[in-house]
Amino acid sequence: MNTSVNTSGHLSFSDLSFPDWMRYVQAQTEVALDRLLPTADTTPAHLHQAMRYACLGGGKRIRPLLAFAAGELSAAPVTRLETVACAVECIHAYSLVHDDLPCMDDDVLRRGQPTCHVKFGEATALLVGDSLQSLAFELLAHPLSDDPQIQLRQTFLLAQASGSRGMAGGQAIDLDAVGKALNPQELEQMHTLKTGALIRAAVLLGALCGDPPDETALARLDRFAASAGLLFQVIDDMLDCTANTTTLGKTAGKDAAADKPTYVSLLGLAGARDLAEQLQTQAVSALKPFGEKARRLTELTDFFVRREF
Amino acid sequence: MNTSVNTSGHLSFSDLSFPDWMRYVQAQTEVALDRLLPTADTTPAHLHQAMRYACLGGGKRIRPLLAFAAGELSAAPVTRLETVACAVECIHAYSLVHDDLPCMDDDVLRRGQPTCHVKFGEATALLVGDSLQSLAFELLAHPLSDDPQIQLRQTFLLAQASGSRGMAGGQAIDLDAVGKALNPQELEQMHTLKTGALIRAAVLLGALCGDPPDETALARLDRFAASAGLLFQVIDDMLDCTANTTTLGKTAGKDAAADKPTYVSLLGLAGARDLAEQLQTQAVSALKPFGEKARRLTELTDFFVRREF
Repeated sequence: MNTSVNTSGHLSFSDLSFPDWMRYVQAQTEVALDRLLPTADTTPAHLHQAMRYACLGGGKRIRPLLAFAAGELSAAPVTRLETVACAVECIHAYSLVHDDLPCMDDDVLRRGQPTCHVKFGEATALLVGDSLQSLAFELLAHPLSDDPQIQLRQTFLLAQASGSRGMAGGQAIDLDAVGKALNPQELEQMHTLKTGALIRAAVLLGALCGDPPDETALARLDRFAASAGLLFQVIDDMLDCTANTTTLGKTAGKDAAADKPTYVSLLGLAGARDLAEQLQTQAVSALKPFGEKARRLTELTDFFVRREF
Repeated sequence: MNTSVNTSGHLSFSDLSFPDWMRYVQAQTEVALDRLLPTADTTPAHLHQAMRYACLGGGKRIRPLLAFAAGELSAAPVTRLETVACAVECIHAYSLVHDDLPCMDDDVLRRGQPTCHVKFGEATALLVGDSLQSLAFELLAHPLSDDPQIQLRQTFLLAQASGSRGMAGGQAIDLDAVGKALNPQELEQMHTLKTGALIRAAVLLGALCGDPPDETALARLDRFAASAGLLFQVIDDMLDCTANTTTLGKTAGKDAAADKPTYVSLLGLAGARDLAEQLQTQAVSALKPFGEKARRLTELTDFFVRREF
């Protein structure tokens, strides 16, 4: 892999093929998480081991990839992108740990491994989620940056995206939706919150790491992220019913088993595929004014459609 | 009650008796929480109703009282103190909701009412805690203040105090401690994290709302808060075994029933009383250099010792 860091600490990603760039960001995120999470022997050790278990050793790192890709638009320094990527990933990891708990989805498999509560117990898994959420904001607000205004904005955006009018709110709608017949608008609202809010935050936080984009550019990016987030979810729904558990690394078919409404149950596989194509077109067209700088975001959108896990 | 607000928006608390001041801050916190929490009909309504249930309608508001009292040291404006007090109270309320869950303390009574999961179900209670934590940081990082540097510092302090090396870490140590014989140092370490960290954050965040105190003053305040936090816990342990459930508004005697180490189980009632006196002396002496400005903090410390619920 041929990467080069220029004198201002900005990474020149342009030489890398998309698969290499993706592997680079995933590896970079893993290393940064390993460094930013408390070590496994820090008191209380049991909790810190469980936090590390929940965050390290895999995952698609979709949100870090989006943050890094958006960072290209504003020539963002890698060090700040790493922090932002880890903060968003901590929120994502906490949501998975809590989502897998017996009182929620009651799932035993995640990333091909026993879920956090299966391995460490329910009470510890609860605290793992709680602590990962705090850690996300601790990372973002760490008083070492040279632009507190931007840091504060990033912190605010992530908090909004995580809370009851964002990701957690989407989870609540999801809970209420079990066994109900949602229409496409209601399903979209649920996913716009449940997965969309954090995906949008990842994109905006990444872009805000560099030369501050103007509000028009940010609004355009947000439109991109809204389409890309929904696209990601439509494909997720399709994979949930077409892929098997080994490939996914999590229990396949569980939405149907739990009688949860999905894009596939609502539109059928062909209808979901059509919707995915529409969303891809919308996402890519929102990126057009950014030109070549949006290359990684475009490639990621394409990857969302092609992925098989 | 005779309060006056001067032209710069700073409240003149000095005319109020301590009980009146306390009632004023408690009422002010209730009103501010009511305003800052999403309304009960905001989607998802079930979640927002449960969040409001967990935060409104009572509680001692110890942390808001500490924030307001510390704000007197720096002539802090009431509007910012309200925000900070609500943020800290959201973290406290979330910790109670999660702590009461079946996989933790499995408690059915809080503030004289059914606990959140008894009333709204376990899954919703989990999301209530998660969402209240996000809301705390959303409030603190709201981009409307004129000093992002201070806001960022407050956000960082609260995140640190809440996480795995703060409150949640204390909970994890508490979990591990059931049925074990801790020595006084281990018990102190647990409480320093479990309740102490958030109490210290409340004091520091309050003081940071006004004319920034110098680092020496902040360090002194932190020493005060460490002693006051531990004092609060020692008295809590004493009340847990001497008061009844109706007075406490939560299940009395539950520490002993759960075989949890407490200051009373370790030192006996008389020994715990002696320790409380020592801690009160330490707390009050740390405040001495602040003179009359520390009046409310001193009165609060005194209240901690005298309280009966």
